[in-house]
Amino acid sequence: MNNREKKVQRQSKLQEIIKSNPFITDEELADKFKISVQTIRLDRLELGIPELRERIKNVAEDKFSKVKAIVGREFVGELIDITIGKNAISILDTDDSLVFEKTKVVKGQHIYAMAETLALAIVDAKAALTGVANIKYKRPVYAGERLVAKGEIVRTRGNKFFVWVFIYVNQQEVFRGKFILVSIDECKEE
Amino acid sequence: MNNREKKVQRQSKLQEIIKSNPFITDEELADKFKISVQTIRLDRLELGIPELRERIKNVAEDKFSKVKAIVGREFVGELIDITIGKNAISILDTDDSLVFEKTKVVKGQHIYAMAETLALAIVDAKAALTGVANIKYKRPVYAGERLVAKGEIVRTRGNKFFVWVFIYVNQQEVFRGKFILVSIDECKEE
Repeated sequence: MNNREKKVQRQSKLQEIIKSNPFITDEELADKFKISVQTIRLDRLELGIPELRERIKNVAEDKFSKVKAIVGREFVGELIDITIGKNAISILDTDDSLVFEKTKVVKGQHIYAMAETLALAIVDAKAALTGVANIKYKRPVYAGERLVAKGEIVRTRGNKFFVWVFIYVNQQEVFRGKFILVSIDECKEE
Repeated sequence: MNNREKKVQRQSKLQEIIKSNPFITDEELADKFKISVQTIRLDRLELGIPELRERIKNVAEDKFSKVKAIVGREFVGELIDITIGKNAISILDTDDSLVFEKTKVVKGQHIYAMAETLALAIVDAKAALTGVANIKYKRPVYAGERLVAKGEIVRTRGNKFFVWVFIYVNQQEVFRGKFILVSIDECKEE
């Protein structure tokens, strides 16, 4: 097999892999094929496959079309999977803009916002509010770490939705939150 | 007593009142003196007393000099009273930039951030993290409402601080949160 043939074969395989796992990084691909990251980038360019960040965004926008209770630009993170009324997954790449200066630890408010907006996204209601949240930070999160949030509706009672959200860094749990959301149509002021 | 004398007397009284209550509004002052808001403004101008927003900021900056665990620009709201290691009060004037588009209700994440940063400010430690938060939103908050947050350390155990934060609009409770903060010097990753 000459170089030309090798390349065609590799690119066809590359296309297949990215299709089945759109969140694979160029580094992981380079590792898989035992070639340089630079070559992977050139392959992607030739094949017209956008870079990881762009692929994530495309999936997120597509997924978001199903969401009812929150608009896209208010969502904290990128929505990568969702079954309305059931569960959802989002990711958030943390950076220096999200940390407390003193501790260099990502502010609780950002992790909270990621979890709260994920919970809202799952709810099958035109609008909803947070009523209660019980949350636990298991370990500090540092800038550069990628947060993966998994949310699930565990119970629905009348206009109340009980949603659990777990957030992980490299499969390690860093946060868990139990939210009770109230759909707004029936929500009355006290 | 001629007009000139009346004015001097009023301005002296005005100065006294604002000194003892720097957060009184021009409207409240006008009411008290039974004169127009415009006259109050002119009086303040002549006396060199800054407007309410400016006065709040001045007090907040002064109060902040005592805070250890968080830097001023990271604080959500204005700190208007604090006894380090004990309790503190902050205010936040909400506006349209803080609400969810769908519900026009102030996002939980902002109220949460106000409460979390107030809790951090009270703690007598160089740096601290949120470990646990149990929070309850009692009624929706709408843009334009002024939030007044009161925080108090209810218990300290080793490097853990148990802080309660209550947030009010016109004396009505809209939020309550119990936080457990961990001072960072002794905080270990799990």
